[in-house]
Amino acid sequence: VVFFLSDYGLADEFVGVVHAVLLRQVPDVAVVDLTHGIPAFDVRAGAEALARAVPHLGPGVVLAVVDPGVGGVRRGVAVRAGDGRWFVAPDNGLVGPAAEACGGVAAVRDLRKPGDAPATFDGRDVFAPAAAALAALGTPPPGAEVDPASLVRLTPALATRGSEGGLVVLRAPVTWVDRFGNVQLGATGDEGPPPGADGILVRVTAPPGGDAAPGARPTSFRARRVRAFSDLGDGELGVLGDANGRLAIVVREGSAAASTQLSAGGVVELVW
Amino acid sequence: VVFFLSDYGLADEFVGVVHAVLLRQVPDVAVVDLTHGIPAFDVRAGAEALARAVPHLGPGVVLAVVDPGVGGVRRGVAVRAGDGRWFVAPDNGLVGPAAEACGGVAAVRDLRKPGDAPATFDGRDVFAPAAAALAALGTPPPGAEVDPASLVRLTPALATRGSEGGLVVLRAPVTWVDRFGNVQLGATGDEGPPPGADGILVRVTAPPGGDAAPGARPTSFRARRVRAFSDLGDGELGVLGDANGRLAIVVREGSAAASTQLSAGGVVELVW
Amino acid sequence: VVFFLSDYGLADEFVGVVHAVLLRQVPDVAVVDLTHGIPAFDVRAGAEALARAVPHLGPGVVLAVVDPGVGGVRRGVAVRAGDGRWFVAPDNGLVGPAAEACGGVAAVRDLRKPGDAPATFDGRDVFAPAAAALAALGTPPPGAEVDPASLVRLTPALATRGSEGGLVVLRAPVTWVDRFGNVQLGATGDEGPPPGADGILVRVTAPPGGDAAPGARPTSFRARRVRAFSDLGDGELGVLGDANGRLAIVVREGSAAASTQLSAGGVVELVW
Repeated sequence: VVFFLSDYGLADEFVGVVHAVLLRQVPDVAVVDLTHGIPAFDVRAGAEALARAVPHLGPGVVLAVVDPGVGGVRRGVAVRAGDGRWFVAPDNGLVGPAAEACGGVAAVRDLRKPGDAPATFDGRDVFAPAAAALAALGTPPPGAEVDPASLVRLTPALATRGSEGGLVVLRAPVTWVDRFGNVQLGATGDEGPPPGADGILVRVTAPPGGDAAPGARPTSFRARRVRAFSDLGDGELGVLGDANGRLAIVVREGSAAASTQLSAGGVVELVW
Repeated sequence: VVFFLSDYGLADEFVGVVHAVLLRQVPDVAVVDLTHGIPAFDVRAGAEALARAVPHLGPGVVLAVVDPGVGGVRRGVAVRAGDGRWFVAPDNGLVGPAAEACGGVAAVRDLRKPGDAPATFDGRDVFAPAAAALAALGTPPPGAEVDPASLVRLTPALATRGSEGGLVVLRAPVTWVDRFGNVQLGATGDEGPPPGADGILVRVTAPPGGDAAPGARPTSFRARRVRAFSDLGDGELGVLGDANGRLAIVVREGSAAASTQLSAGGVVELVW
Repeated sequence: VVFFLSDYGLADEFVGVVHAVLLRQVPDVAVVDLTHGIPAFDVRAGAEALARAVPHLGPGVVLAVVDPGVGGVRRGVAVRAGDGRWFVAPDNGLVGPAAEACGGVAAVRDLRKPGDAPATFDGRDVFAPAAAALAALGTPPPGAEVDPASLVRLTPALATRGSEGGLVVLRAPVTWVDRFGNVQLGATGDEGPPPGADGILVRVTAPPGGDAAPGARPTSFRARRVRAFSDLGDGELGVLGDANGRLAIVVREGSAAASTQLSAGGVVELVW
């Protein structure tokens, strides 16, 4: 099995061609498309999606391509995690969080070949063949073993907890807005307000480095800690622990992103 | 084989994770994605799509997830149709029309387990494992047999036929607008105007419960009963029996939805 | 293996139903979706995508459906290329360039049956069964052998090379804008400016037959010939030979289509 994630989208034939290359090399391979809807060039969003998916995968190789640096000096790598799972990807931080979830990085192989020409479609020409080799043989294609410490890693966007007038303030990045408008935060469900908390203040602030209009004040909302969507009334904002163990801001049968104007990369403060 | 339909979209990893769960449990399963483009929370649109697809499916289990009530009190069910086909879905009406097309509902099993925690991703945690069990063994996971009559059913949106000044008036709901802009109605091809009918009046009225602007009059168009797109001239509106045996309003190489501003949930009157 | 390309999109169940039909007829078939994101009715875009994909496909039948003439007088055909690969498609030019890439058209079989009813979903009812028969048996379904010269062919959109005040002027159609905004031209990488060329003038002109506003002058930009995205500075426009051997206008980690307002069907002049 090859699990395949990318920012290729489905409008073009990129994904289909990678499938064809995998199948040509390993005729009985099964390819599972995790998603190809990662926003173009958004390595962090790809890393988040991969980390959410990886606990649910059975045996198989992960092929992940979100690759703004294609054709440049960045390495391609095959990464073996502590639990034995292989990842094939550009070395730009994409597989870091997923590999952590699989026991950390145990070994790294450099997929560059001497004299490689500049290229624009390494997913087809480099990463798919490497993933196919791993799927067929369990061994990566030839390449230099490199120090796991040399892997590029993303700076994690962490939640911070403070206080304000006797109240708890949890400041957390928005890591994902899903198709239903659920707003997932970079914090675990346990870090959020306690069960039953009501009147939680949700303060939307500018993203880090973002330009707030002069004099603009954060927009704020009220929310309630719930266990499930169904605990909420129509249009009511809720905070819950989601299916990935993360804290999320939600609306029942509606879009919390539309209600709050939050999007991935934004920052929110919960005060209770 | 598992046939999988949902409103998960393809931007997120939901569909991929469900595939992974199925494959992990049944390594040789083939998963056919019927569509994941059902509008979010739109149970009726999902039920229509499933009913259109099911006559063309070979042996296999149907996994259908359009689930606005996830985490609430709605049941998850495994439904066996009269022809032996199993459906796994939330009990919200989603599989009713498709099960009817397969000989009606023969048996229903409740997939809830005592002590189930509230949840936000039952597709992954409840329905996929149940579908996998059915695909592997042909038997559903343990669960109480419940009365088929207790299944939630959608109120069908039916066409009605009347007359007006000696003319036939067929009032029909719009059940689907496809990617090409073909407007499918909740009526069979046979219920429509006879072959060769010309000058059919197509009256667009407000959707049931919709707010028509005060004094607004229905917009109307003229159409011709045809056998195929190719019988139509450029931009001409046609009425035909479509590939699902339904009456549809169409434009050759163009969008009847764009021409008429009709969309799913709307209502149209054909007068001839 | 069946390789499947269409303009069906993924919002509806069209693609899923075709998969189901293939699988029903050939239980162990593997179906690779090349793409279903071809713009509706855009035969030329489909032909381009198919020609780009086909060099990377292993053994298997190609099923291609972009079919504005469905239900009309156009034929359905099974086309055998010089290298033995079969294509199943409407006879509207869709498979021409891909078949050329496979050694030209060796044989053509007419898939029409006497008495065929008008239809709206030949992908499901005609082309998928024919592709399944080919995948299972290697032989096409019964049908009249017809003259390969009778196949409908698209007029190729060719680049032309001229001169202007001692400079080279390459006038080329835009054949594709991909998801990342790379603008692919109907010219090979070798036909473009030489390595290292700087200050290349990129003149955007009206598409053939397009209406330029009276007095409108072409918009122009400057670009540099590069080997890879990474040779470019932020926002800088580049010209390179892409992964399909074609000339393309690109921006590093950005959209050349957004920068230049070029889209498929447009025409551009490169002057150096």
